[in-house]
Amino acid sequence: MPDDTTDDVPWLFDDATTVRPGAVEGDWDVDLRDEFTIVNGHPNGGYLLALLGRAAVAAVGQEDRHVVGATATYVSPPTTGPAVVRTEVLRRGRTASQVRAALVQDDKVTVDVVMTVAALSADPPAWGEIAPVEMPDEATCRADSRTGRSAIVGLPEPPLAKVMRVSFDPEVLSFLSGEPSGRGELRAWLSLADGRPWDPLALLFAVDALPPATFEVAMTGWVPTLSLTAYVRALPAPGPLRIRFRANVIAGGFVDETADVWDATGRLVAQSTQLAAIRL
Amino acid sequence: MPDDTTDDVPWLFDDATTVRPGAVEGDWDVDLRDEFTIVNGHPNGGYLLALLGRAAVAAVGQEDRHVVGATATYVSPPTTGPAVVRTEVLRRGRTASQVRAALVQDDKVTVDVVMTVAALSADPPAWGEIAPVEMPDEATCRADSRTGRSAIVGLPEPPLAKVMRVSFDPEVLSFLSGEPSGRGELRAWLSLADGRPWDPLALLFAVDALPPATFEVAMTGWVPTLSLTAYVRALPAPGPLRIRFRANVIAGGFVDETADVWDATGRLVAQSTQLAAIRL
Repeated sequence: MPDDTTDDVPWLFDDATTVRPGAVEGDWDVDLRDEFTIVNGHPNGGYLLALLGRAAVAAVGQEDRHVVGATATYVSPPTTGPAVVRTEVLRRGRTASQVRAALVQDDKVTVDVVMTVAALSADPPAWGEIAPVEMPDEATCRADSRTGRSAIVGLPEPPLAKVMRVSFDPEVLSFLSGEPSGRGELRAWLSLADGRPWDPLALLFAVDALPPATFEVAMTGWVPTLSLTAYVRALPAPGPLRIRFRANVIAGGFVDETADVWDATGRLVAQSTQLAAIRL
Repeated sequence: MPDDTTDDVPWLFDDATTVRPGAVEGDWDVDLRDEFTIVNGHPNGGYLLALLGRAAVAAVGQEDRHVVGATATYVSPPTTGPAVVRTEVLRRGRTASQVRAALVQDDKVTVDVVMTVAALSADPPAWGEIAPVEMPDEATCRADSRTGRSAIVGLPEPPLAKVMRVSFDPEVLSFLSGEPSGRGELRAWLSLADGRPWDPLALLFAVDALPPATFEVAMTGWVPTLSLTAYVRALPAPGPLRIRFRANVIAGGFVDETADVWDATGRLVAQSTQLAAIRL
């Protein structure tokens, strides 16, 4: 075997979000992978967002730019396997371009996303901050997450759990044993299991990688996201991400949940808000 | 004059958001009105969102339902006058329907919105709250806003100012005289000037009715919204709305701003987040 074999093996995330030019201009062939599915067998919403993000950047043809804003509407859950991403460049701009990308299976739109593509820096904010959430260091959280995870009641570990390393703050671990604290907030460190570094595209996955924050309110059935909005604010530094995911208000069968994501230096790198349906 | 004349005069908001079935199934003819334009002569983003929301509800054909979630992408500013709203029902569901609506002028998409349409109640939340922002009562704010407004430096009053009654918390009035406090938060009471009561559709206007919250950071040029996400959480009670609009982080030429909207009883009725371009 040649020495450089490892260089030829792509990271799982990149392999699973590969987009190939399709039969029609603006179409991209993709393969929705089993590894990124959750308990119900459906692909994870953040994974789909990242996959569509890769197609959007390719469609704009500005490979040095990144998705800085994305609003996804989840119409129906796609199944794993082949699918097509239909892209339409709405605006090609100097500061920002805007692209619509629809994930299509059997001629039906399953996810509809509109994205803003622009340049990103690692510079500190010009104004304002959202202070990183306080929690124990990753090693401490990791040790406790292992103990907690072995005590999960009722939920089998989904394939997605193997793709990433989630180290929960021990204080939010009660939900794993079916006893939510009622506070509606999850906190965790997040890395990709194969060591792939975080970049702006993978942040689109990170904003929706944790279980529903409502699991810390009540152990309900699945909480399907209807609409998710994500902003990527900066190039992330190497190291694990710090994520706070919280439910705000549950009313009329819907809940809004917001995520804040900091890199290992404590810099805010991504934010998201989503509206999901919930039955209490 | 007959006694019932006033019954025949529609509220300005309803008149200005009227949608008429267009030439093609799913198309709606609209008229973008001067009254809802801002300083640069462009129609206000929240007004456009409400207009598209009306078309979305009509397209779904569920007139007793409301837009509970909307994500709008502002591609280019439309001009006042005739335009077409192209709607496409993505999913018709028992709990929630999803509709895409695009505002088209000269065959170009200027605003692209995907909306979730569902039932809304006035019931209190099942869990959680976002406590109403504290500020003086409307009358106190109103008196001070009048004084403040007469001292606006450099900015002519846009037509939109006549459509609504904004009563700013006196503590945030410094920006009106060109001396932002640096806190990046606006607080105000909001009513429609002709007395039209708030309803879920008009809340889509309310979430983006205030000036940019960044005006309380720095008096820059206009801060164009690229993407706006709004959630409507409950049927509002009669009376003025209480709005908090704040900038969170300005980085890399973009800012995220969040709005929380409570009805006169202090119940959270709408939320929004937006990503805008800004030059400091």
